[in-house]
Amino acid sequence: MKIGILTIGNELTTGRIHDTNSAFIAASLNALGWQVTLAMAVGDDNDSIKKGLDYILALSDAVVVTGGLGPTADDMTTAAIAKAYGLDLYTDEDVLQEIKSRFERYRIEWTPNNAKQAMFPVGARPIYNPTGTAWGFALRTAGKLITVIPGVPSEVKRMFPEGVLPLLKDLQPGSREFVLSRTIKLFGLSEAKVDQTVTELKLRIPGISIGFYPRFPENHLVLTSRGPSEENVRKNLAKAERRVTEALRKYIFGYDNETLDGIVASLLTQKKRTLAVAESCTGGLIADRLTNIPGSSLFLERGIITYSNESKIQLLGVPAEIIEKFGAVSEEVALLMAEGVRKLAVTDIGIAVTGIAGPAGGTDSKPVGTVYIALADGTKSFSRLFHFRWERRRVKEISAQWALEMLRRYLTEEGPDGR
Amino acid sequence: MKIGILTIGNELTTGRIHDTNSAFIAASLNALGWQVTLAMAVGDDNDSIKKGLDYILALSDAVVVTGGLGPTADDMTTAAIAKAYGLDLYTDEDVLQEIKSRFERYRIEWTPNNAKQAMFPVGARPIYNPTGTAWGFALRTAGKLITVIPGVPSEVKRMFPEGVLPLLKDLQPGSREFVLSRTIKLFGLSEAKVDQTVTELKLRIPGISIGFYPRFPENHLVLTSRGPSEENVRKNLAKAERRVTEALRKYIFGYDNETLDGIVASLLTQKKRTLAVAESCTGGLIADRLTNIPGSSLFLERGIITYSNESKIQLLGVPAEIIEKFGAVSEEVALLMAEGVRKLAVTDIGIAVTGIAGPAGGTDSKPVGTVYIALADGTKSFSRLFHFRWERRRVKEISAQWALEMLRRYLTEEGPDGR
Repeated sequence: MKIGILTIGNELTTGRIHDTNSAFIAASLNALGWQVTLAMAVGDDNDSIKKGLDYILALSDAVVVTGGLGPTADDMTTAAIAKAYGLDLYTDEDVLQEIKSRFERYRIEWTPNNAKQAMFPVGARPIYNPTGTAWGFALRTAGKLITVIPGVPSEVKRMFPEGVLPLLKDLQPGSREFVLSRTIKLFGLSEAKVDQTVTELKLRIPGISIGFYPRFPENHLVLTSRGPSEENVRKNLAKAERRVTEALRKYIFGYDNETLDGIVASLLTQKKRTLAVAESCTGGLIADRLTNIPGSSLFLERGIITYSNESKIQLLGVPAEIIEKFGAVSEEVALLMAEGVRKLAVTDIGIAVTGIAGPAGGTDSKPVGTVYIALADGTKSFSRLFHFRWERRRVKEISAQWALEMLRRYLTEEGPDGR
Repeated sequence: MKIGILTIGNELTTGRIHDTNSAFIAASLNALGWQVTLAMAVGDDNDSIKKGLDYILALSDAVVVTGGLGPTADDMTTAAIAKAYGLDLYTDEDVLQEIKSRFERYRIEWTPNNAKQAMFPVGARPIYNPTGTAWGFALRTAGKLITVIPGVPSEVKRMFPEGVLPLLKDLQPGSREFVLSRTIKLFGLSEAKVDQTVTELKLRIPGISIGFYPRFPENHLVLTSRGPSEENVRKNLAKAERRVTEALRKYIFGYDNETLDGIVASLLTQKKRTLAVAESCTGGLIADRLTNIPGSSLFLERGIITYSNESKIQLLGVPAEIIEKFGAVSEEVALLMAEGVRKLAVTDIGIAVTGIAGPAGGTDSKPVGTVYIALADGTKSFSRLFHFRWERRRVKEISAQWALEMLRRYLTEEGPDGR
């Protein structure tokens, strides 16, 4: 079944808000195996609404409309749809009573413009709003279904699954497609290389499609499995996941809703290891990411942001001569920082980053984007050198990501030397 | 002039990402006095792209297209547009060389699929991408203008104003409405209070409209002035800005593209003051924000993330008895942390945050969201107590914002005691 989305409101065409409803609705429809033909946003304007509906319904079996159902003069969705299909408006007395009783219950003064919210095109069926006063409605026209709900995201999150989805399911009774999907999260391999590897896999498994989503600095692959038999859909998905995992194992850090911060935090917690962080060019971003995870105080003892050479010498015990000889951005200093912060904090692991985030500070031998990341555990220390392109903020982001990835590989023993 | 927006990508029609480009582009067009006819999102699919372009161009003078310009097989925007208008593709050798040299510069291995990014429909003019390898292009067809840029939001933020807007301005020479706008950035007053204050101002100045944009934890007001005379548009905008500034002065930290991080960094640099930061519940976020500003090493000596009590005692010299008596989250500890980090780093100013970000760790007397922020300058110290609602990440964000705002008020002497 093909379904389109029409979002209505001047706040969308003037860019005052980001439309989050379309993505929510599209994801819900996609998960049920239905195809979203398109999502269109138009202003509060009769002609745009009518033309948009016509265009979407020419390509779709149904349309989900959001927005423009409030009590104010610029909320004109109901009237525009009635006009578009030559229908009169009527007041639903039951809905009107429900809205009035809601005003009483919340002790809000009733103003006559609210009665507008109980008016619907003749032939429409009202859709209950559990959290607000703007009811929605559904209308069948020329074999197609139009459903209309308000645009407030919290109301969409209730009314779409509770009021709209059952009507869409009724449109297509009987045999339905099963759909399952799995997100594979990768880091450390370029977008083009991930694509090339997946293409070369020649993954010809029935009902399987692969979506590719770069999320700097990560790349996400989404495997979707569709078909009439739930068992086969599940089997095919598992098969596809196995083949992709075999080909890209080294670069996969997690699946579905997992995050790299969360995975590193879980590993440290499970293994009862403590951590101290010494950051130069990342400026606190590694510690910031780890402390986003509830319970991070169990493993993160402290972080030191050594922006000055003096702080590297004083707190981490890096000898001034070493900084003088090799430079603050060097393998020698990175290793001593990791070892130094571990000793200072008396933790199992120390991790350190030193680099040139730019835009200034680069030299011919050490251009902007040169970053050393080191890890020390009291028995051994190792470091890696990176050359990043990107501007300052992205150098910070990818450096922090690599530090966490080196920790993950070290903790899982996939790359005990951080590689 | 009427302009439409077409965003392309399966990630949009499957709801895997929220489209933020449309709102950014629509807001920019609107600020220039142009009307956005509609914004449409379609999947990576020849037919949807062609039909969408036809529909939008029937209603608009130009269309801004984003997405589907990457090197992978599912990036098909260029080929789809060429096909839609019966055009062949050609390789622009200059663009190809530029992309290849970018790969060399950043030491990334060249794969042949990247050459696709130097291919354009015959008659199209390439649009430079300052931050990535996917160039855009502009194409004139039947008196209408099609501009195409990648969908990566950071690339849109550069390429749309630098590469697309000049082409749109060329489309409409001669007499135009003058439009000027000014963004006023506020922090520390609730959304409802800002709205109420502005409403009560009864700002009736010709051609002035006010947009209200909550951007957690900030609130932004955008004053827009329109009219046929540039002089009056300018005068009216200045008048509106003056009246809003008078009413909300205490809460305004900046204008237009200024950020709180950037303002604090400029103040510290101009006044030649050095800073050290001690963070507990913000976990490095304050230092991370300050180090996003190029040149922050001029004023930021170091940051200490004292997640453990031991680190507060050892590095900042907070006596264990004080922590024992008042708790790690207390005014006493916050003040000692600010003084301690200032002494340790030998800087002009020390700032410290200690609090309970949640979800665990709250008590009856100190619930989740209890945060103390202190500032010390060697002569005096002061602290403020906050009770935030919100979940963990937002407690971190609003705490870091308040720490920076207290610094700003202290440095401008608007609030020498942080209030």
